[in-house]
Amino acid sequence: MNAVRELGVIDRLAGGLRRSPHQLNRRHESDAELLRLPGSEAILALTTDAVVEEIATGLYQDPWLIGWMAVTVNASDLAAVGADPLGILLSVTLPHDAPRELLAGLRRGFGDAADAHGLPVLGGDTNRGAALAVAGAAAGWVSGGRPLTRCGARPGDRLFASGPLGLGAAFAFNRLVSRAGDVAFHPLARLVEGQVLRSYASCGMDTSDGLITTLDELARRNACGFSIPGPIERILHPDALRVAAGADLPPWLTLAGPHGEFELAFSVSPDQGDALLDAAAANGWVPIELGTVTEAPGVVHLGDQPIDTTRLRNLFDDVGANVEEYVRAVRRSGG
Amino acid sequence: MNAVRELGVIDRLAGGLRRSPHQLNRRHESDAELLRLPGSEAILALTTDAVVEEIATGLYQDPWLIGWMAVTVNASDLAAVGADPLGILLSVTLPHDAPRELLAGLRRGFGDAADAHGLPVLGGDTNRGAALAVAGAAAGWVSGGRPLTRCGARPGDRLFASGPLGLGAAFAFNRLVSRAGDVAFHPLARLVEGQVLRSYASCGMDTSDGLITTLDELARRNACGFSIPGPIERILHPDALRVAAGADLPPWLTLAGPHGEFELAFSVSPDQGDALLDAAAANGWVPIELGTVTEAPGVVHLGDQPIDTTRLRNLFDDVGANVEEYVRAVRRSGG
Repeated sequence: MNAVRELGVIDRLAGGLRRSPHQLNRRHESDAELLRLPGSEAILALTTDAVVEEIATGLYQDPWLIGWMAVTVNASDLAAVGADPLGILLSVTLPHDAPRELLAGLRRGFGDAADAHGLPVLGGDTNRGAALAVAGAAAGWVSGGRPLTRCGARPGDRLFASGPLGLGAAFAFNRLVSRAGDVAFHPLARLVEGQVLRSYASCGMDTSDGLITTLDELARRNACGFSIPGPIERILHPDALRVAAGADLPPWLTLAGPHGEFELAFSVSPDQGDALLDAAAANGWVPIELGTVTEAPGVVHLGDQPIDTTRLRNLFDDVGANVEEYVRAVRRSGG
Repeated sequence: MNAVRELGVIDRLAGGLRRSPHQLNRRHESDAELLRLPGSEAILALTTDAVVEEIATGLYQDPWLIGWMAVTVNASDLAAVGADPLGILLSVTLPHDAPRELLAGLRRGFGDAADAHGLPVLGGDTNRGAALAVAGAAAGWVSGGRPLTRCGARPGDRLFASGPLGLGAAFAFNRLVSRAGDVAFHPLARLVEGQVLRSYASCGMDTSDGLITTLDELARRNACGFSIPGPIERILHPDALRVAAGADLPPWLTLAGPHGEFELAFSVSPDQGDALLDAAAANGWVPIELGTVTEAPGVVHLGDQPIDTTRLRNLFDDVGANVEEYVRAVRRSGG
């Protein structure tokens, strides 16, 4: 498979650094870092994720949503390893002229998301800078059994998502390009679902950058491909269908990133499929079956269409993070 | 005592948020957040600290130093609670045109500081933004006994620092205001010292914002004052003395923030003083005795001079983080 630009940056920043003897995962192998605590059977899950571009581009404007998302993006990483949430730290960079209403809105967003996810705010750090930015760092806990990782999918496994997809891109398209009514967006990380999946799934990852990026990453980690039979509409969120129809976009393009919807995508071996569906039902949850894990490394089919996942994943960076350019380029991909 | 502007911002961002039942410290009570892990005797220490203003003002220009400090500022918070280091996450915001040499310099700084502190880089996150910024989040571990906190000082306790002070401000003054030769600055967080202190000190905190801010904070937490007999030169780093002499500044002004030197300041009850000094010596380390904890809340004396610690702590923010203005205002404080 071709190189992913973002992974190249990460490798240049982290390549060759000494590893912790307690760390269970290698780089890119899981959504959160996994550490066996010295002298303990328990596994600590640690992750950091920041809300920066979403503010700079105007995608998140409401301080409440910025606060909500700073917590949720980190909770989603804990969900994708099946961890119980312990707490979150928030590093907030504020402009010098930050009004009180901004602070109050952020606090309400932090608090509402912390309560909704059972992920209390433990502390943080404030800085002064030219632009508002919030970096979170969350800790979770896997107290028995193995955590979920991106590794373990095998050809023949069934591929699922925790819920309908495309809402993240639809929200972004509607906000930044062509406003056609409101698209409600305040996702809840799939923590309960992740804890169920730990016992059944062969691999998992969140869709924080959209399903296509998730499949590209899972294909790399597992040297596999994916096939998702059409019609693709069956796996899409109603608002994704509505926004795509209104803008005359092929609906599957709402699966392209870089802004996703924070569902979980996961694979399950055929003999675990029914047990997973039973456990999900017992938790009041119905996974959406996407398709299957296939043998050809890096080959992803949506409906009958082969998708160049690497190209789509690099596209936002290739156009210099220019949203208008990106949408034009994605439209061209849509034929 | 009067209000500290930075604490006001933190309280507006975090006030009223639900606490974790596992968290041992309250807000502002320790340099790192302390969590009793469910079903365990061990205490997890978590902290986040970012390098933002130091880059924006030009204080840190060398990518290696930026990388080194992003790790060290977080290691220093772990040191101040006496934790064993577990690892660190790094959230890096890069400008779009970041050259390869910037990435390579950051990586060397991250790696050198991670190795020097035994605090391996576990993972991280990259974002694109207008300005370079690095937020770190570190985890540590207190496996037996109690962690060190900012609370517990009593009048009559002896006050120490882990090493000579004033280097952080001297480096900043020399870099930003009046360059008079080089001032070497690549501090090592006092992790070993903090682990020794856990058994002996009544309170502790790092001097990441300069000693005066540290004493202001410890005075608030313990409703006490501090008296540091002169001559103040005896507690200052040789480079702090040199920079102050070259710029005709009163030497004690190198104890004002907002850029400190990442030593630990701590108090010890009189009956523990000798045991502490013995334990320090056994670790090849000689604490510097600063003075004593006094009764009058918030009253800090340096030599014979009472210091308005709150005013000095607010000053950088009061002048809108303008470095030239700040130095003029600090000079006026120096009489």
